[in-house]
Amino acid sequence: MSNLPTIHEKRLVASSRIFRIEELDLTFSNGVTRTYERLASRGIGGVLIVPLLADYDTVLMIREYSAGTERYELAFPKGAVEMGEDLLIAANRELMEEVGHGARQLELLKRITLSPGYMGHKTNIVLATELYPATAEGDEPEPLEVVPCKLSELDELIARDELSEGRSILALFMVRDWVRARQLRS
Amino acid sequence: MSNLPTIHEKRLVASSRIFRIEELDLTFSNGVTRTYERLASRGIGGVLIVPLLADYDTVLMIREYSAGTERYELAFPKGAVEMGEDLLIAANRELMEEVGHGARQLELLKRITLSPGYMGHKTNIVLATELYPATAEGDEPEPLEVVPCKLSELDELIARDELSEGRSILALFMVRDWVRARQLRS
Repeated sequence: MSNLPTIHEKRLVASSRIFRIEELDLTFSNGVTRTYERLASRGIGGVLIVPLLADYDTVLMIREYSAGTERYELAFPKGAVEMGEDLLIAANRELMEEVGHGARQLELLKRITLSPGYMGHKTNIVLATELYPATAEGDEPEPLEVVPCKLSELDELIARDELSEGRSILALFMVRDWVRARQLRS
Repeated sequence: MSNLPTIHEKRLVASSRIFRIEELDLTFSNGVTRTYERLASRGIGGVLIVPLLADYDTVLMIREYSAGTERYELAFPKGAVEMGEDLLIAANRELMEEVGHGARQLELLKRITLSPGYMGHKTNIVLATELYPATAEGDEPEPLEVVPCKLSELDELIARDELSEGRSILALFMVRDWVRARQLRS
């Protein structure tokens, strides 16, 4: 693997309420220089939670308005991990706020990046099982619609136009594999 | 499904060489008002290409420096679709630039979003088969390392720390399913 480029300077070039854009000057190990832009990450990342029911086939997704695409999107509940907060505790809090359930079992499946060339943000994909009814006050502008979906119908689900978010589709594949591995063990 | 919120105003609040941040004022159908921020999309999105060899098991990934995470990341080749360009032609161009192959067969598997609440950007996941050696001049600061990986070793691959990009991991799962469906047909 190549040696890491040397970063000479990082500058804030623009910022808003929730975004900060940085410029990086760097020199690659072959002497080539570049200036890259990236979104700076705030905090310690986010969680995406897959609530899996006791039939080990039904997952609870939500239908939520998304300002980036200006439409309702089918996706898994997500949220930010607060400073100093355990990520599984954050996952359970978001689950209560957005889906009306808590989970007795929470397991980190994978920590992913979205677009590592342009942002450092990390999302922790968490599987939630042994669910129980529980609610917490969120900051949603309207009640979220909870949509039960079946892992055994993954192909049909992926073909749906309202399911576009790559992280949620990846989480469906990972949990389908997790369920299959569990079936093989038992 | 709820009625779409009404968008009253969109404002540019910050911009840089490659990013533009917008604010949206909107009213949900229940009367609740919100101001959201998002990254505005430029162009018609991107392509992510999965080059699959004739053994229907080996895919070619690349190891590339990523400024967002400040390290080398294992991922599939990606690039922007230029205005007016067919997305499969864009996919083949990026494949030649980054992997040194062209493809006689290109198939769009799914158009995904990254984070639809905060950005509208779309990535088209394209499967490339029937490869042949071909190169095109890219704008990479250093030669990219091409890394053959096996779909049959997906679990081990996902466990590798240098593979973090959600889109690439999703593409691995989708192509593994594509290969299995092809085997069932034949």
